[in-house]
Amino acid sequence: MASTDKPTDPEYNKEAPPPPPPSATVNCFALDITLRVLLFASALTAVVVIVTSNQTKFIPALGFREAKFKHSPAFVYFVVALSVAGLYSIITTLASLSVIWKPHLSAKFLLHFAFWDVLILGLVASATGTAGGVAYIGLKGNDHVMWNKICNKYDKFCQHLAGSLAVSLFASIVLVLLVWLSVYSLHRRIPK
Amino acid sequence: MASTDKPTDPEYNKEAPPPPPPSATVNCFALDITLRVLLFASALTAVVVIVTSNQTKFIPALGFREAKFKHSPAFVYFVVALSVAGLYSIITTLASLSVIWKPHLSAKFLLHFAFWDVLILGLVASATGTAGGVAYIGLKGNDHVMWNKICNKYDKFCQHLAGSLAVSLFASIVLVLLVWLSVYSLHRRIPK
Repeated sequence: MASTDKPTDPEYNKEAPPPPPPSATVNCFALDITLRVLLFASALTAVVVIVTSNQTKFIPALGFREAKFKHSPAFVYFVVALSVAGLYSIITTLASLSVIWKPHLSAKFLLHFAFWDVLILGLVASATGTAGGVAYIGLKGNDHVMWNKICNKYDKFCQHLAGSLAVSLFASIVLVLLVWLSVYSLHRRIPK
Repeated sequence: MASTDKPTDPEYNKEAPPPPPPSATVNCFALDITLRVLLFASALTAVVVIVTSNQTKFIPALGFREAKFKHSPAFVYFVVALSVAGLYSIITTLASLSVIWKPHLSAKFLLHFAFWDVLILGLVASATGTAGGVAYIGLKGNDHVMWNKICNKYDKFCQHLAGSLAVSLFASIVLVLLVWLSVYSLHRRIPK
């Protein structure tokens, strides 16, 4: 009845819970990898959609005029930021995959993932805001400073912008979920 | 409870390292509170500086014209986002203070802080980007779509904008540091 074997002692188990089972670690990293693949897909989609947004239109009195994302530094910043996020998602997907074979390093990986994911979130959120702010002026104009709207002329260009912005908003949400997952996974390893 | 003799058992100590000393918890939360007070100060400064940016100028052929932050939805969003961050910093400073008296709840608080700090970071970073993108057009204009620059006319207005944007960038950095602090504090509580 009385056992000297520590792990079967109920008091011992109460004080020091066992580490999470390997299946929990694998599940956590499987979800992590899924989210990182989603991040890659959304970053790539956002970049492709905005890069293919060029539209040429005939404007009376001005002749043929082209709308390009390169004409606005805000959209250039957006493309750079989303490209960085896409590249980052590839590297971290590989890193996350490597944890499945080295589960003893998982806590260290979660720490580094959370550190970097937060930085990339700041980058993607600010780029979405920057491009969104400029696109909104293109859509509505601003009479106070006489900035005319352009979406009534360049419909395809603006549709691409809107699509790209929606996808990058989704990428921001995925990054928030990635940080939450890392933080939650770290928290559940702490003995109660 | 018969658990008082457990910490002296060498096998127990090997399996479950002791929790961090209370001084480490207090140090972590002292830094957390300092950062949250900094967040409050920067959010308040950013809001006050942009709200007091109104400038009236005499423009030949147009008469007296006023530049107001309310004229741009981007700046209104910026003020709302920074106000939310300021309010949030007050609430979480009080929550962080309460942990000093209830150290046993610290891991749970760190988890919740990290969850919410990430959301507020997304909000502040996107608002900084939105206002920055519009302010950049005000500074440089955009010849491709004939959006004229306004900072050559409204110098005080643009100086306030620049100051407010710099402070909100600082607030974003403070939020990144807050998430890092929570994640790092959670990580060091995990048994090696």
